[in-house]
Amino acid sequence: MSSTGPLAASGRPPLKVAVLGAGTVGVEVLRLLTTQADDLAQRVGVPLQVIGISVRDTTKDRGPHVDPSLYVHDAHALVREADLVVELMGGIEPARTLLLESMAHGASVVTANKALLAQEGAELYETADAAGVDLHFEAAVAGAIPLVRPIRESLAGDRIQRVLGIVNGTTNYILDAMTRTGASFEDALATAQDLGYAEADPTADVEGLDAAAKAAILASLAFHSRVALQDVHCEGITSVSADDIAAARRLGSVIKLLSIVERVPGEGEVPERVSARVYPALVPTSHPLASVAEAYNAVFVEADAAGSLMFYGQGAGGAPTASAVLGDLVSVARQKVHGGKGPGESHYASLPIAPLEELRNGFYVALTVDDEPGVLADVAGTLSRHGISIATIHQEQEQTDPFEAQEEAPAPRARIGIVTHRALESAMSGALSDLSAHDAVVGVDSVLRVEGE
Amino acid sequence: MSSTGPLAASGRPPLKVAVLGAGTVGVEVLRLLTTQADDLAQRVGVPLQVIGISVRDTTKDRGPHVDPSLYVHDAHALVREADLVVELMGGIEPARTLLLESMAHGASVVTANKALLAQEGAELYETADAAGVDLHFEAAVAGAIPLVRPIRESLAGDRIQRVLGIVNGTTNYILDAMTRTGASFEDALATAQDLGYAEADPTADVEGLDAAAKAAILASLAFHSRVALQDVHCEGITSVSADDIAAARRLGSVIKLLSIVERVPGEGEVPERVSARVYPALVPTSHPLASVAEAYNAVFVEADAAGSLMFYGQGAGGAPTASAVLGDLVSVARQKVHGGKGPGESHYASLPIAPLEELRNGFYVALTVDDEPGVLADVAGTLSRHGISIATIHQEQEQTDPFEAQEEAPAPRARIGIVTHRALESAMSGALSDLSAHDAVVGVDSVLRVEGE
Repeated sequence: MSSTGPLAASGRPPLKVAVLGAGTVGVEVLRLLTTQADDLAQRVGVPLQVIGISVRDTTKDRGPHVDPSLYVHDAHALVREADLVVELMGGIEPARTLLLESMAHGASVVTANKALLAQEGAELYETADAAGVDLHFEAAVAGAIPLVRPIRESLAGDRIQRVLGIVNGTTNYILDAMTRTGASFEDALATAQDLGYAEADPTADVEGLDAAAKAAILASLAFHSRVALQDVHCEGITSVSADDIAAARRLGSVIKLLSIVERVPGEGEVPERVSARVYPALVPTSHPLASVAEAYNAVFVEADAAGSLMFYGQGAGGAPTASAVLGDLVSVARQKVHGGKGPGESHYASLPIAPLEELRNGFYVALTVDDEPGVLADVAGTLSRHGISIATIHQEQEQTDPFEAQEEAPAPRARIGIVTHRALESAMSGALSDLSAHDAVVGVDSVLRVEGE
Repeated sequence: MSSTGPLAASGRPPLKVAVLGAGTVGVEVLRLLTTQADDLAQRVGVPLQVIGISVRDTTKDRGPHVDPSLYVHDAHALVREADLVVELMGGIEPARTLLLESMAHGASVVTANKALLAQEGAELYETADAAGVDLHFEAAVAGAIPLVRPIRESLAGDRIQRVLGIVNGTTNYILDAMTRTGASFEDALATAQDLGYAEADPTADVEGLDAAAKAAILASLAFHSRVALQDVHCEGITSVSADDIAAARRLGSVIKLLSIVERVPGEGEVPERVSARVYPALVPTSHPLASVAEAYNAVFVEADAAGSLMFYGQGAGGAPTASAVLGDLVSVARQKVHGGKGPGESHYASLPIAPLEELRNGFYVALTVDDEPGVLADVAGTLSRHGISIATIHQEQEQTDPFEAQEEAPAPRARIGIVTHRALESAMSGALSDLSAHDAVVGVDSVLRVEGE
């Protein structure tokens, strides 16, 4: 045993930790703070002492590792006493005000609150820097997977070009279930809710907002710029149909909800910019992201010198998220003990946002058309007029419900599936507008990007 | 543009950087220090200024980013002037002495020298802690893949159970080539040498010593204990044959050189211990490690709360290794500017090493036997007497060379392939000793572990 055993560490005054929120993650954080107390004291240099737990319901039993005598109602008073504040309440207020107060009083902060960071990050970062305290948030992106620290620190001497991945477990679970079983979005969502993978109100997940918040955080870090939630182009998965999944399969692909942030090179007068976007996309089955199953997360980081790095693991859940929180807590606690400060906000590059319309993507487009001569040629001609080059076009089997009562014989219809080469988003918008107006086009069923090729 | 633009940063005195060694990695580090100078200055807070490059040959042209006027012969004088020392010489001496001198003079150190850390780590860590400087070495393990930092910092609040992976690109390239082409070890090695994936003297790679050094470093970090090179059980890939690769394929597996470090739970009087080992093993093709091709690296980290995390990327090469060096350099430079100190050595747990003989593993064993009645039953009986339970046993096609001149008709022989359930290493040693002594056993061709199931 070394000379700095547990007793040596515990002989020094502890750091006072305030925990705001004791839901699934909070309870796990408190469990680790208890069961790992000796190890944490060794790793920090002094013990960590929980001085209060801010909860709404002070009567609830939260298990053996959550001491009810530490429950407090007045979170504002609590954070004024703390050296370190762990925020796990979620939502914008009162979390925002409490974190600003914490930092103003000299406490370093660990938070898992992606929505808050994506919306109010600038204010929080500035307050942390002004107060000389740390603001860490590994748990806000991809749960247990170390991603914030590698981007913020490990790649600090490199030039990141792109971060691309699956950062929302709920939507990946739903899309994976649709792919495995052929289920509709609605049925897969219901199953995910039954199993606890989706919340009763799934909006933030299925509309892509959670993934977009994470994209904003990743873009800010990777490109040393301020990218907020409203800068992220965001499409969810609610309109992904069983037909789309089946069509993707025929094309050797699966559909994944991707978060993509990347540098857009400057050209002529246009400076280098940043793109941040979230949408469901076709990914070839040969791509490593295609095999990310259930609620797992996986993220590629592409940098000039490092090349392509992949990170994979559990992106959500109480224990994995708590692991990330505790890692941050040890870091900020060490800084309190040894002096110094981790990397603060870095937005010196201040790259502007590239609007989606100016980007080029491959597309999969599905149309329902009247099954009459010349329609396919018309569709191809419309795309061509907008400068869009077709990779494949073919008539797909229309999925009809044989049990559905049909009052009259329907007009014969066909579904056309098109995969394009890379084309300007604005050109595709124009083409889709023209196609929708075409007499023989009954409807544009799907527009999905093609990525990872 | 923010108020802290390049001019603001460059108005402050630079940090003085000494670079020791200008081989493949060193040249890339110097290139990044030049081309990324503005970004680095922003990220650190002050510019980084290379004050000297220690090289043996001061006449060699190392390209446009290596200024020959910075070449120095006297590395000892150089490090005394430096705030930050980047050591890329490799080998034990003079690297060890130079790093000890650097730290004694107050410089923080970044090194990629896995052999030095694995052999002399304790002395280096202690010197760094005593001097209050940082010793960073992300580049020493798995090149560009952030692994040291995630284990040292991101998982500092968790309890790591196991780190398992492919951390040597040369051997993975050779084994992958053998798997793809059916080539012998010797032929695959020659190809790897031709293509620059293996060195002229491949000993450190193919004997597993490089992977073992990395295992020692990973075990020390993951388990807060001192694990040195001599504590790592190490087997290389020189005896892996084309027959083994073919047999593995028939068993639905590939052969990979694995580095494994893990906690061995205590039992009765025996305390918790650490195992660190490197050997070629059968890995099922369904396991993510099986699809790691060419010279790539991939590592799983398994922790109680985080679950299983995977990291994947380029484990060697000038640019990827330089990326890791620069990430560390920014970190230690930031600490110089802002005060504080990163995590130093942490060996409080001081877990003892569990000898290999006391571990349990699954095995693949190949024997050449005289093809006569009762031999298979004898082999099975021998294993059984040693308490080893057989999962599968079958006679394999013997690979004979039809072009080899045979002076007399050979005795009929067979190759027996056995896969066992988990068995004590010491039991297997005993069984192999008995089998070798059996009259009908011509030889034990292969003994490989089975992992990842």
